[in-house]
Amino acid sequence: MTQKAVCLLSGGLDSATALYVAKSLGYDVMALTIYYGQLHDKEILSAKEIARELEIEHRIISISLPWGGSALLDPEIPVPTGRNESEMSDGIPSTYVPARNSIFLTLAASYAEAVEAQAIFIGANALDYSGYPDCRPEYFKAVEAVLRLGTKAGLEGKGARIETPLLKLSKKEIIELGMGLGVHFEKTWSCYQGQELPCGECDSCLLRAKGFREAGVQDPLLTYAASSHGK
Amino acid sequence: MTQKAVCLLSGGLDSATALYVAKSLGYDVMALTIYYGQLHDKEILSAKEIARELEIEHRIISISLPWGGSALLDPEIPVPTGRNESEMSDGIPSTYVPARNSIFLTLAASYAEAVEAQAIFIGANALDYSGYPDCRPEYFKAVEAVLRLGTKAGLEGKGARIETPLLKLSKKEIIELGMGLGVHFEKTWSCYQGQELPCGECDSCLLRAKGFREAGVQDPLLTYAASSHGK
Repeated sequence: MTQKAVCLLSGGLDSATALYVAKSLGYDVMALTIYYGQLHDKEILSAKEIARELEIEHRIISISLPWGGSALLDPEIPVPTGRNESEMSDGIPSTYVPARNSIFLTLAASYAEAVEAQAIFIGANALDYSGYPDCRPEYFKAVEAVLRLGTKAGLEGKGARIETPLLKLSKKEIIELGMGLGVHFEKTWSCYQGQELPCGECDSCLLRAKGFREAGVQDPLLTYAASSHGK
Repeated sequence: MTQKAVCLLSGGLDSATALYVAKSLGYDVMALTIYYGQLHDKEILSAKEIARELEIEHRIISISLPWGGSALLDPEIPVPTGRNESEMSDGIPSTYVPARNSIFLTLAASYAEAVEAQAIFIGANALDYSGYPDCRPEYFKAVEAVLRLGTKAGLEGKGARIETPLLKLSKKEIIELGMGLGVHFEKTWSCYQGQELPCGECDSCLLRAKGFREAGVQDPLLTYAASSHGK
């Protein structure tokens, strides 16, 4: 029987690639997008387009984190821009959202348990200066332990595995992998800011640009966004 | 400096008592109530009354779990009624909500991190036939490991502890503890069904009734609800 996988899909380049990886491995994939109060909804729109492209079940749920504590949630906290690699790798950035991946993974686990999915895919990446504590291998092992102990499926030995296919890849390698799988990168959104076009200056834009540069490919989003913008 | 604690407050007897325990220990307490699509909102109203009584900061957030998988979320799945103790202790009940406590605790952890709280209180109870896998001591240890590894506060050695003061108490002992602390039990709601008065037949009503009977006290909710109902 085909195994099912719940894939966390933010609408960014990484999560889209992780979704395509799950599909290429033969899973019956379903996508979960979580709107958590970001200051813009560009990623959500991207997630919708990606899921539509693949014609898969796609759930979008909303949660609010009214306590803020992140530049992605609070307009008073600036998103860092124009940083070089050494600055990016220096500590946890202000775009860190308290306990975000833990919230995402437990929501995905609830979904997975209800539909009897065997795997949860997340496009987390431990390299490229993310600096986020909830993107490290030992963290994901700890979450798996929680699901094994704290869910009915886990107790029955049918708990979902957490799959992190991009964990140890560089952005260049992720882009190469995604291109091989046919990911529509022009439909993904990475920029932390929600303007019509990517700002080109936040950490996320800079890492994306570096990845495409190193892969020797032009980022199709730039042409796509400019043409959509012109419409 | 006074330590802060985020207390998960469902509006039931257990979570109200756990909140009062946190307060009695000298914490600066703030309550978090999560509406997750239950078929009724009686507990939420109770949570509001309890927090108002204590004059504390109270956040109520909504999440949706549209995949169902529980008698508390799906009107097609019946809530078990009229069960005896041996039936209640036989496996995981249909009122189990996939990964609920994990979702609650990670949301509480996000709140705790944003306000620099040192503790998260949850009124979970491993006795009295709850049958829920996410109410066992080893489960809470695993969640603490996730928070230690996966949050900025955890990495800095300031991650919140998970406090489960009721974990090993019987319902009778919880009621005795709560009475000593002045918990307004008449304002708590335990029934899984959302009628004007408690149904008296679901597992939660039966356990509550047994607790009050063993404590030799009349449940003040019964008089309070009847008089409110009459208004």
